Amino acid sequence: MNHLNTVPSLAHIQEAHQRISPFIVRTPVLHSDALNKMFHTHLFFKCENFQHTGSFKLRGASNAIFSLDEESAQKGVATHSSGNHAQAVAYAARKHSIPAYIVMPTNAPKIKIEGVKEYGGQIFFCEPTLEARERTAEEVIGKTGATFIHPFNDYRIIAGQASCAKELIEEVKLLDVIVCPVGGGGLLSGTALSTHYLLPHSQVIAAEPALADDAFRSFQSGKVEPVLSTVTIADGLRTSLGEKTLDIMQKYVSSVILAKEESIVKAMRLIWERLKIIIEPSCAVPLAAIMDDTSGFFQGKQIGIILTGGNVDLDKLPWQ
Amino acid sequence: MNHLNTVPSLAHIQEAHQRISPFIVRTPVLHSDALNKMFHTHLFFKCENFQHTGSFKLRGASNAIFSLDEESAQKGVATHSSGNHAQAVAYAARKHSIPAYIVMPTNAPKIKIEGVKEYGGQIFFCEPTLEARERTAEEVIGKTGATFIHPFNDYRIIAGQASCAKELIEEVKLLDVIVCPVGGGGLLSGTALSTHYLLPHSQVIAAEPALADDAFRSFQSGKVEPVLSTVTIADGLRTSLGEKTLDIMQKYVSSVILAKEESIVKAMRLIWERLKIIIEPSCAVPLAAIMDDTSGFFQGKQIGIILTGGNVDLDKLPWQ
Repeated sequence: MNHLNTVPSLAHIQEAHQRISPFIVRTPVLHSDALNKMFHTHLFFKCENFQHTGSFKLRGASNAIFSLDEESAQKGVATHSSGNHAQAVAYAARKHSIPAYIVMPTNAPKIKIEGVKEYGGQIFFCEPTLEARERTAEEVIGKTGATFIHPFNDYRIIAGQASCAKELIEEVKLLDVIVCPVGGGGLLSGTALSTHYLLPHSQVIAAEPALADDAFRSFQSGKVEPVLSTVTIADGLRTSLGEKTLDIMQKYVSSVILAKEESIVKAMRLIWERLKIIIEPSCAVPLAAIMDDTSGFFQGKQIGIILTGGNVDLDKLPWQ
Repeated sequence: MNHLNTVPSLAHIQEAHQRISPFIVRTPVLHSDALNKMFHTHLFFKCENFQHTGSFKLRGASNAIFSLDEESAQKGVATHSSGNHAQAVAYAARKHSIPAYIVMPTNAPKIKIEGVKEYGGQIFFCEPTLEARERTAEEVIGKTGATFIHPFNDYRIIAGQASCAKELIEEVKLLDVIVCPVGGGGLLSGTALSTHYLLPHSQVIAAEPALADDAFRSFQSGKVEPVLSTVTIADGLRTSLGEKTLDIMQKYVSSVILAKEESIVKAMRLIWERLKIIIEPSCAVPLAAIMDDTSGFFQGKQIGIILTGGNVDLDKLPWQ
């Protein structure tokens, strides 16, 4: 299949997981007695920072790319992204021996450009506006016949990202709640589906920076609300939802909780210090939102947290 | 037994491993395709940065403390240290429900003092000289009857540290060489013994900062040579060997290789970036020494590297 036209079923998610398994890391789940004591909870951290390319994005990109039919695949794949999705598409395309055309803004971080190059992606630079990115991608697709791989608003992507919560649930088994960061909502909607199918009595809660609360507002209004500010340190979460991800979110996600910027930095540093792992600021948003919660809801609960990636510029740490 | 008076046999090491297993993490072994490609080797990193208390030191301390007879144990244990050994002794003593008396210099890093306090150790501050540390420890032992737990020059400690290479060998099986950092030599001599018993055709190589090359000189001269300078960034390796560790080293270690300071920083950053884990500068010394090696010896080999710990001050990173 080139496309998946319905909300992924459990069978679709299992099929996706099987398809991508040879190419992804079954990432470990870590915990820390000190953090559990500090938050009066049992926290289980699913470490997608250890995934190839440094983030969960490889799961969705691999599923989308490996499920292309032979003719489409030979023409290659394209996307526009300045972040982890670009690296994931380039990496998965190389594993599939097909070309990857990546449109990147001229101001993309050097480290991300290097990453895409390292994985063999062909880069097309454009002005740093969404319009220029989309136009350049269309031009590249017009010339090459490549298939566009959307970073989140695509059921193949969602089914791939769902494999992450599936692994977490298979490993930990009893979880009262899974807290997942939300940007475009690909990981969140995949997590919500896997949890709905495999742990139906558990809740999925989305965590978002208070400074980029578009998912919170979209969840309330029922339509995709734009991001109004991109100043949050959680650079992976500055994206609006898509129609598909919002739809799944409204059906299967319990609530959206918000995290203050200072709590995001504090939570990020706590995870570095206590788990001894490198995570991006976006990953720290769930723990930060738990930190900011005053309802007592999380006390004593078994909580799964998805750590989405570890691509950080070590020269610019947020506590410096 | 309160003491082990001979070089640990395989049975001693197995017994130590069984004794401490319920209290330690069986730490994961990580690898990175990118690092393998960069160094033309197959590198297997044993991650003791994920050990409780953040370092391998817990293995030796637990073995020494858990093998005390009941009467000695009740009087508690004592040590002097400003580093990872202090935290390990405090943690293991609490697990054994006995008091830990830790002598620390007044200038010990605040984070290490907090660590010892967190694990319930009773701290006795002294002037920051070796003489004051030893005198204060003697006073405390005189008053309490506590047993002194040496950080490395003790066969119980060596047998405990040997469990780390034992796990690495059990997991990876085929290793041509294990490269291990050397400070006091507890981990190194344990690693050399486990490798001698379990992988007799493999080599153990010690890695040391060129700026603190006392083990290199001791290995050549056959007697314990003093550390002449403590300026290396690898703060865990500023210690001289002991008689027991040098003796084992001379029998079972192939060679000592040296690493430049700039290579240590470079290797540390590479491990942070590629493995997405937090390690101390001391851990980076083996990879740095491999980087500095010009003989071609390591090319194509299966190499085990022990990452000793992850207790780093995140406000003072060496590349800043």
